[in-house]
Amino acid sequence: MSAPDRLQALRIVLVAPRHPGNIGAAARAMLTMGLARLVLVRPRRFPDPEAIALASGATDVLDGAEVVATLDAAIAGCVSAVGFSARPREFAGRVLAVREAAAEAIAHAAHGDVALVFGTEMSGLSNEELALCGIAATIPANPGYASLNLAAAVQVMAYEARLAAGDDSVWRAPRFAPATHDEVEALYAHAGETLEAMRFLNPAHPKRLMPRLRRLFGRAGLEREEVNILRGILARIDQFVGRKPR
Amino acid sequence: MSAPDRLQALRIVLVAPRHPGNIGAAARAMLTMGLARLVLVRPRRFPDPEAIALASGATDVLDGAEVVATLDAAIAGCVSAVGFSARPREFAGRVLAVREAAAEAIAHAAHGDVALVFGTEMSGLSNEELALCGIAATIPANPGYASLNLAAAVQVMAYEARLAAGDDSVWRAPRFAPATHDEVEALYAHAGETLEAMRFLNPAHPKRLMPRLRRLFGRAGLEREEVNILRGILARIDQFVGRKPR
Repeated sequence: MSAPDRLQALRIVLVAPRHPGNIGAAARAMLTMGLARLVLVRPRRFPDPEAIALASGATDVLDGAEVVATLDAAIAGCVSAVGFSARPREFAGRVLAVREAAAEAIAHAAHGDVALVFGTEMSGLSNEELALCGIAATIPANPGYASLNLAAAVQVMAYEARLAAGDDSVWRAPRFAPATHDEVEALYAHAGETLEAMRFLNPAHPKRLMPRLRRLFGRAGLEREEVNILRGILARIDQFVGRKPR
Repeated sequence: MSAPDRLQALRIVLVAPRHPGNIGAAARAMLTMGLARLVLVRPRRFPDPEAIALASGATDVLDGAEVVATLDAAIAGCVSAVGFSARPREFAGRVLAVREAAAEAIAHAAHGDVALVFGTEMSGLSNEELALCGIAATIPANPGYASLNLAAAVQVMAYEARLAAGDDSVWRAPRFAPATHDEVEALYAHAGETLEAMRFLNPAHPKRLMPRLRRLFGRAGLEREEVNILRGILARIDQFVGRKPR
């Protein structure tokens, strides 16, 4: 199974969500990261128009959501369950930061389904619910105000899962034709002559001027069009300092 | 400046936010990660009761929010600005994934304020707005549905900033007294004798039974109370198999 496919093995489990808007926002957060499987344990209201409104187009996730009566049923068949908790309490398993928990979840997802379990809005998972999970995960937060919205917590978890599954892609600005080696060297030669003509560069004592310029433009990676622009500027300077083009 | 203090140097800039609820949810997301400085460029409605409702207690962030007329004014005085964009376009600066962008923002925050700039809900930052930023940041997302809610994007950025500033703390379950070496060895000795008495362990051909048990319990890291429980179980087995306690 390829790493991104493993996202399909993740079940987001919401235990007793009170606000249908949070269910919709969680569905949207899931889909932005490529997660699609939502399980709801005793939702107060579902389906609900508020959930659809907040899902903002991620309605397939809502349509496919499974509603079950117990957390046990939600986790059934999973190879691993990760329960989220912001507050310290007794727990027999390991407690991991969400980044490590995501890495483990993706590793386990090679072998079967993995449940990511979030408690009810005001009070979170009970000790009994968390005890059904082998791993407790916590999202590092401001100790004075650690109250992440339910969908925001799902967003952070799903984001970390996507990165753990190997998507660290960024978009790239369109690339233009790079200058060739010859074009760049001709630019440096031209610049050297112009700088000499300006009496800015003394060929008897060149110091480190040209190497510094090479370093600067080398770091930038010159495009052909940029070389043309720079040579245009140099040619204009040449007119002022009375240097004849070669 | 200590790393967590650097979070105070981060300005979250929302350009032309349309929905006051998103402003409130963004304020909440910020405060969960210890960010407090919010700058609004031409918000459609602010202040607004919906913003207060969605801020869910993070009203100090809203009360302290600065409202300005231009993105230039929002970024003024910053040593660095990071603009968020989900879609590829022409951009003169560097394009980084949010994790790397957060690391750079925290590094720059040692030297002054850093702006983290988010565009309007439907269309994001314009090319002109993004061009005011030296770094473009992108949140890896599902190419088929990359539509993160504004506050969700702020949540991911603020979360990464908090981790970049050094908070990878997790809560720990309360620890109980570990068993001493002697207690653990006495347990293994007892177990060996009981297993012999049960004729499960043949001392002439012990195979790898005891090393496997040592490996298992060694990995778990036995607590004193657990050793007592296990020895209690062994003692009970001893009664059944007729082994006299030593």
